[in-house]
Amino acid sequence: MATVTDTPIRIGVMGCAEIARTVSRAIDLAPNATIAAVASRSLEKAKTFATANGYKQSVKIHGSYESILEDPEVDALYIPLPTSLHVEWAVRAAESGKHILLEKPVAMNVAEFDKIVAACEKNGVQMMDGTMWAHHPRTAKLKEFLFDSDRFGQLKNIHSCFSLAVDEDFLKNDIRVKPNLDGLGALGDLGWYAIRAALFANNFELPKIVAASPGTVLNEAGVILSCGASLSWEDGRTASIYCSFLANVGMEITAVGTNGTLCVQDFVIPFEETHATFTTCLKSGFNDPWVSRPTEHSVKTEIPQEACMVREFARLVGEIKNKGAEPDGFWPNISRKTQLVVDAIKESVEKNCQQISLSGR
Amino acid sequence: MATVTDTPIRIGVMGCAEIARTVSRAIDLAPNATIAAVASRSLEKAKTFATANGYKQSVKIHGSYESILEDPEVDALYIPLPTSLHVEWAVRAAESGKHILLEKPVAMNVAEFDKIVAACEKNGVQMMDGTMWAHHPRTAKLKEFLFDSDRFGQLKNIHSCFSLAVDEDFLKNDIRVKPNLDGLGALGDLGWYAIRAALFANNFELPKIVAASPGTVLNEAGVILSCGASLSWEDGRTASIYCSFLANVGMEITAVGTNGTLCVQDFVIPFEETHATFTTCLKSGFNDPWVSRPTEHSVKTEIPQEACMVREFARLVGEIKNKGAEPDGFWPNISRKTQLVVDAIKESVEKNCQQISLSGR
Repeated sequence: MATVTDTPIRIGVMGCAEIARTVSRAIDLAPNATIAAVASRSLEKAKTFATANGYKQSVKIHGSYESILEDPEVDALYIPLPTSLHVEWAVRAAESGKHILLEKPVAMNVAEFDKIVAACEKNGVQMMDGTMWAHHPRTAKLKEFLFDSDRFGQLKNIHSCFSLAVDEDFLKNDIRVKPNLDGLGALGDLGWYAIRAALFANNFELPKIVAASPGTVLNEAGVILSCGASLSWEDGRTASIYCSFLANVGMEITAVGTNGTLCVQDFVIPFEETHATFTTCLKSGFNDPWVSRPTEHSVKTEIPQEACMVREFARLVGEIKNKGAEPDGFWPNISRKTQLVVDAIKESVEKNCQQISLSGR
Repeated sequence: MATVTDTPIRIGVMGCAEIARTVSRAIDLAPNATIAAVASRSLEKAKTFATANGYKQSVKIHGSYESILEDPEVDALYIPLPTSLHVEWAVRAAESGKHILLEKPVAMNVAEFDKIVAACEKNGVQMMDGTMWAHHPRTAKLKEFLFDSDRFGQLKNIHSCFSLAVDEDFLKNDIRVKPNLDGLGALGDLGWYAIRAALFANNFELPKIVAASPGTVLNEAGVILSCGASLSWEDGRTASIYCSFLANVGMEITAVGTNGTLCVQDFVIPFEETHATFTTCLKSGFNDPWVSRPTEHSVKTEIPQEACMVREFARLVGEIKNKGAEPDGFWPNISRKTQLVVDAIKESVEKNCQQISLSGR
């Protein structure tokens, strides 16, 4: 947590995507961060965005991405640019000594992401991706349950899904259906979260095998609009994931362990900003499955999960800036694993659902 | 529904499995059925079962399966024998003019099941399998929602799972882990329901492709203890299923359509006998996924779902017996489709998750 004497981390917003509105508010709400600057490809666009989001007069407006990189009063950059631009701008940001909060998917593939990580390591800057739910206090409670060898036991299977039905305009014009922009489509935009949930429940161990499920839907340009996949680990742990731009909202986790069951209905974006729920079911009998009924748990959060994310990012940046700490390798490490699984599912889709081995990756 | 003047359908219980206890109670509770006889491989076993389940003195006790087949005061047989014995005894029952309520899985494979169906057709007897949840009044409400083109739209994906953690004794000794008894293991015993749910949501259209997911767990004798599978239909409809003897209770359906979402937490065995719930979520916005919050619905049932099953079976038998109606082809038809998918998943498991085409089956 920031102490009263710490100066808030000065964050620059690099790009004016829709999601940048949510994160701007989150930076405002995080006690240890402040919006210092905003950049777009034109001064006018950046100004319009700043006004629309109620930025203070003191926020600097940059008419180009280069310009914000050179701003000495910016500690860190939030980068919600299209995925295809991540490798260029995240590397340049790191080389400019800026810490990076990078939207997901972090890159078009892991080779690109490795360039970003290398630049961050070389320049001693923190990298974190924009997976908000990871920072909700509920997630810590889910982790407690999933790794409780009495209540949950050993994980056997997790199903996670994220779907949101888009409109016709989105399917024609959104950057998330354009191969040269967010070319990973629904897999990168929504599947990212479902994959992250599967990795989370497996303590971020990479699966051994990944296979796309039959029935992937691509648009005319070959971008994934909807897909599913199966993942398997050693000792019989498995996962299935589903993501789609074509189906109504679903954001469920169902995880079954040897002793317990976990259900979350809204894992990506909780129903309420102030609290979030999950359900657990303890050891059942074969002939009386509901001998233990499901129990609902509710977890409060002082600030929305996206503000928790900014607060944690700013805390890590503060440790580096003010105390000479090293960047925390946990966050880029789990981004990389998520990207590896995204890549493997895409490869399996391209190879008619062939099994892809992740051993050695 | 039975009218007061109808004589209850006289059902014989052929085999004394654990599940026969539940169905005996169901026959008692169904207004149009009565237990007329019970058979086991010995008179003593049949007597013990009759006493333990509080059968009336008038219930005839048979010391062999042959004997109950010849009982002229039995209209129909409930057959909870091990799966490997179904083809022999269901065919003999049909040839004896008995209507058949047959436990699931209905056979070791569809070729065997087709022999049962042929015998039923030849002898004009009704066949129905023991999928209890199909008869709960909630299921009719789920159907209403799933086929409401406004509220749900077109189905895109359904995930269904059924897991129950068994104990060490079960894993060593239960008939459901023995290749020569219930040789389809968890796939036949639990996966059956998950597959049925996927077919139900697809209006019983067979999928085009079925593929087992990596990570199937077999016992030393090669019986499936845990597995998952992906199914796909034309026009981008998909399903994933999971079943396991090794994981704590899970019996979820999550179905997403173009307009709506359906969640059921206890689809196989409702938490309560008197009513059952499900949750629907209507059209969401991409940038505000919870613009419509999930709504919980509760459906009452006068009698438990297994008694609803017996009531429907007895009703169909009554139509045939008393009014000269033809057997209803719906039930054997959906049993056959479920068995076809069971067979395809097993084949895919045996072929290292190869895609199995169901076209033409």
